[in-house]
Amino acid sequence: MRKILFLLPVAILFLVGSCQTNTPESKAKYIFLFIGDGMGMNQAYATELYLAALDNKHGNEALSFSDFPVQSYVTTYSANSLITCSSAAITAIATGHKTNNGVLNKDTSLAIKYETIAEKAQKAGYKIGILSSVAIDHATPAGYYAHQDSRNMYYEISMEMPESGFDYFGGGGFHNPKGLNDSMPDAFENAVAKGYTIVNTKKGFDALKNGDKKVFAINPKTYPKGEFYWEIDKVDSSISLAEFTKKGIEVLENPKGFFMMVEGGKIDWACHSDDIATSIHETLAFDKSVAEAIKFYKKHPDNTLILVTADHETGGIGVGNDKPLRLGLLQHQKISAQEFGRRLTNFKQNNPKASFDDVMALVEKYFGLGNESKGLGLDDNELAFLHEAYVAEFINKTKVNPDKDYLEHFSDINITNRAIYLMSEKTGIGWTTFGHTGTPVPIRALGQGQEYFKSCIDNTDIPKIIEKLMDIQ
Amino acid sequence: MRKILFLLPVAILFLVGSCQTNTPESKAKYIFLFIGDGMGMNQAYATELYLAALDNKHGNEALSFSDFPVQSYVTTYSANSLITCSSAAITAIATGHKTNNGVLNKDTSLAIKYETIAEKAQKAGYKIGILSSVAIDHATPAGYYAHQDSRNMYYEISMEMPESGFDYFGGGGFHNPKGLNDSMPDAFENAVAKGYTIVNTKKGFDALKNGDKKVFAINPKTYPKGEFYWEIDKVDSSISLAEFTKKGIEVLENPKGFFMMVEGGKIDWACHSDDIATSIHETLAFDKSVAEAIKFYKKHPDNTLILVTADHETGGIGVGNDKPLRLGLLQHQKISAQEFGRRLTNFKQNNPKASFDDVMALVEKYFGLGNESKGLGLDDNELAFLHEAYVAEFINKTKVNPDKDYLEHFSDINITNRAIYLMSEKTGIGWTTFGHTGTPVPIRALGQGQEYFKSCIDNTDIPKIIEKLMDIQ
Repeated sequence: MRKILFLLPVAILFLVGSCQTNTPESKAKYIFLFIGDGMGMNQAYATELYLAALDNKHGNEALSFSDFPVQSYVTTYSANSLITCSSAAITAIATGHKTNNGVLNKDTSLAIKYETIAEKAQKAGYKIGILSSVAIDHATPAGYYAHQDSRNMYYEISMEMPESGFDYFGGGGFHNPKGLNDSMPDAFENAVAKGYTIVNTKKGFDALKNGDKKVFAINPKTYPKGEFYWEIDKVDSSISLAEFTKKGIEVLENPKGFFMMVEGGKIDWACHSDDIATSIHETLAFDKSVAEAIKFYKKHPDNTLILVTADHETGGIGVGNDKPLRLGLLQHQKISAQEFGRRLTNFKQNNPKASFDDVMALVEKYFGLGNESKGLGLDDNELAFLHEAYVAEFINKTKVNPDKDYLEHFSDINITNRAIYLMSEKTGIGWTTFGHTGTPVPIRALGQGQEYFKSCIDNTDIPKIIEKLMDIQ
Repeated sequence: MRKILFLLPVAILFLVGSCQTNTPESKAKYIFLFIGDGMGMNQAYATELYLAALDNKHGNEALSFSDFPVQSYVTTYSANSLITCSSAAITAIATGHKTNNGVLNKDTSLAIKYETIAEKAQKAGYKIGILSSVAIDHATPAGYYAHQDSRNMYYEISMEMPESGFDYFGGGGFHNPKGLNDSMPDAFENAVAKGYTIVNTKKGFDALKNGDKKVFAINPKTYPKGEFYWEIDKVDSSISLAEFTKKGIEVLENPKGFFMMVEGGKIDWACHSDDIATSIHETLAFDKSVAEAIKFYKKHPDNTLILVTADHETGGIGVGNDKPLRLGLLQHQKISAQEFGRRLTNFKQNNPKASFDDVMALVEKYFGLGNESKGLGLDDNELAFLHEAYVAEFINKTKVNPDKDYLEHFSDINITNRAIYLMSEKTGIGWTTFGHTGTPVPIRALGQGQEYFKSCIDNTDIPKIIEKLMDIQ
C-alpha cells in the first residue's frame, strides 16, 4: 500500500488547527459522494468526446465534474485480488477496510462487522441518504447499511436495510424481496413494519418534502429485479437519478448536515457487455445527478463537499483501436445491448424463418449498422461476421439468453454482441475485458476539504478523510 | 477545450501577489519536466504492480513519483486528431499551441514558428538541458529547439540543434546525421563547428563539470539510429538516463536557475509492440531519473518544481483481461520484442531447418514460456498458436523484419509478437491497439508551484503555467 505523503498536513490541520472543526463555515457539513460504478477515466472521457462530437467540436466537452478544482486517482485492489469487485470496493470506501471480493462490510474472516461512515454520521446527527440507479440492496448502496458474508445475499441485505433507520433511500427497489424461492417474508413489508414509508409513484415522489423521515422512494418504472431501465432506451415516466438526487437534497437538508451517496450503478453493467454507447448514456444520467449537487454547493460553498469517484473500472476501455476516434457515430445506437437482445429474442420467436436481410434491417434500425450515409457501412468481412451469428442464432437455433451476465461472453456467437462489438470497433474504442480491471480510478473533489484529494490515495483513505472533515472519526 | 477553473487563482496570484515573483524562495528556479513518452496511467501502474509482485507484496509499490503531493490529468488531442502524435504533443507542451500531427513547433499552416519555453527561458538567463533515451533529434527532445514542417525531417532537426545554444544535451545521438542518403554535411561536425563539445565516452562524460557549456553528451552504447539499448536487454557499459540526469544537474546548476526536460523515450516504443515487460523496464529507468531530481529537490525545496507527465498513452493498456493479474511472471522475460526478433532472425539464418522444439527452447529461454514451474506453462491452444507462427517463419519462410515498426502489426503471423502476446495474456494485461490512444495522461507535481496542477488541464496549459512560475511569460 502506498505511503500517503499528504496525511501529515491533514493530521496537522486536525490536531493543531482545531479551529477548523469548531468553525461551522469550514466544516464539511453536506457531503455528497457520487460513485460511478465501473466509471474509470475513459468511461468519462469517452462521454466527453461524444458530447463534443454531437456539437461538431474537436476535442472534448466537459461534464459537470470534469472541471472540479481538485482531481486525482484512487487505487482499488481488494484484500484478496488486485482486481476488486463492487462489494470489496464499497467496503473500503464506506468503512476504510480492505476485505475479500464478495464480502460486504465484514473482515476477511467474516467474524467482524465494520461500522460504515453513514452509520457513524447518523450517530453524530447527520441525516443520511442512499441512492442508486440499481436495486438498493445491490453492493454499492448496501455498502452503507448492510454487513453480510456475501453481496449475493440480497434477501438478507434487503431485510437489514430498515435496521439502518436512514432517512432517505432512493432509486431502485429490491432484487429478491421474497428470497430466492419467493418463499420468505416480504422485505418491503418488513421495511414498512420497521417504520419506512414506501413511495413508488410519481405523485407520491413529488409530494415528498423536507423533514420526511424513513423514506424509501422507488422508481415506478424499473426492471423486475429493481434496477432502472437503460437511459439509452428512453423509457417514459420513469424518475431519473438526478430527480432522486434533487429530491434527496430537499428531504435531507437540515442545520446539522447530511451525508448522501449516489450511485450510477449501470455504467458498470453496460461495460460488462463492452457496450460503449449505453455506458455513455448512463454516464450522462450520472453526470446530471452531480449537477444537482453542484447547484446545492453554490448555495452552501463553505460547508459542502462533493466527491465523484468510482469503485473500479470495468471493461478496460482504450480510447484508441488503430482507427480514428469517431464517437459521434454512437448517436445512431438507439438501444442497449440487453434490450436489443430481448427484442431480437421476441423477433426470433415470431419470425423463426427470418432471413439475414430481415435481421440486418433490425440491426440497422437500432444501431445504424449497414447505413453508409450514417458512416456505418459494413464491408464484406463485417457482414460475414454478422452472418455467422445469424446462422448460429436463426439456422442452427443456438439459444441466446439476452440477460445472461449482460452478454459478457464474446465467445458466444450471437448477433447482439457482434453488433455491439462493431459499434466500438467503428468508433475507435477498444476493450480488454468483459470484467473489471485494476487500474486506479479518478476522484474529483469540489468544496470544503477538496484539498485533501489532490494526491493519489487508496480507496480505504476516502472514508478516513471524509470522517475527519465531518468531525466524526 | 475545457474551461480551466483554477486559472483564476493563478491570475490573481500573479497579478495581485506580485511578491511571489519577487521573492526568490517562492519562484520556480529549477524546473524539471519529465516526459514518459507513451506513459499513461497504466504503464506506471503496471510497473507498480510488478515491483510489488517481485517483493511478494499484495497491491502496488510506489515509484519515485507515485506519491507526489499533487496529481491530476492532461488532455492530449492535437489540432487535427483526437489521438496525438509525439510531435504535436510536444509542440503543445513546449509552446502552448496545438498543431497537426507530424508538425513540430509550427502552426497548422506551417507559416508560423513557435518559440519554445526552453528558448524563452534561455533568453531570461536560465540554463537549459534537454535529455532523452532516444535520439536527441526525435520529436520530444527536438520539441525544445527545432521548428520543422515534419518530425521526420531528422536531418534538418539535427542541423538546427546547435542553433539553440542550449547548455546540455544528453542521451541519444542523431538519427540521420548525414541525411537520408548519407550524402549531406555531417550534423555532428556542424554541432562542433557551432561550438558544441561532443562527449561520447564514459571517461569524457565523467569529466563533465559544473559550468560546462554547449555540451552534447551521447551514450557510448546506442543503437545505430541513436537510441539507447533496451533496459530489459541489460547492455553493459552504457550510461543510464538517471546518470545523464544527475550529470545534467551538476553541469547546469547555477544561481539563475535551469530548465531541464528529460524524456523516457522508449516506453512508447515498447508499447508499440504491446510488450509489457519491456515497457516496465523502461519505466523503471525513467523512474530512476526522476529520483535524481527528487534528491536535488530535497536540497532546494523552495524553488524547485518537478513535473512528471506524458505526451500521450500508447497501446491502450487495460489492467485486466479476464485472467488474474500476475505481473510477477514478467520477471521471466529477459529480452525485448525487438531484440528477440533480431536473435531469432540470426538463429533462422544459421538454423534454417530448426524444429519447433528448437524454437520453443529459445522462447522458453527468453520468456519462460513453456515452463510450468515458472507459472508459464502452455496449453494445447497456446502451443498451436506458436506453432502456426513457426510454420509461417520456418516452413513457409515468411520474412519477418524484427525492426519493422517494432513488430506493431499483430496481423503478421510471427513468433516474436505471439510470444509477446502470450506474456501479456498470462499476466492479465490487455491492449486495445499498437498505436497511441487519446486517453488523458497523468501529471504529477512536486515543489514550488505544484498547486497549479491539481485539476485536469490541457497539454497546452503546461508551458503557460510553468512560464508564469518561472516569470518568463
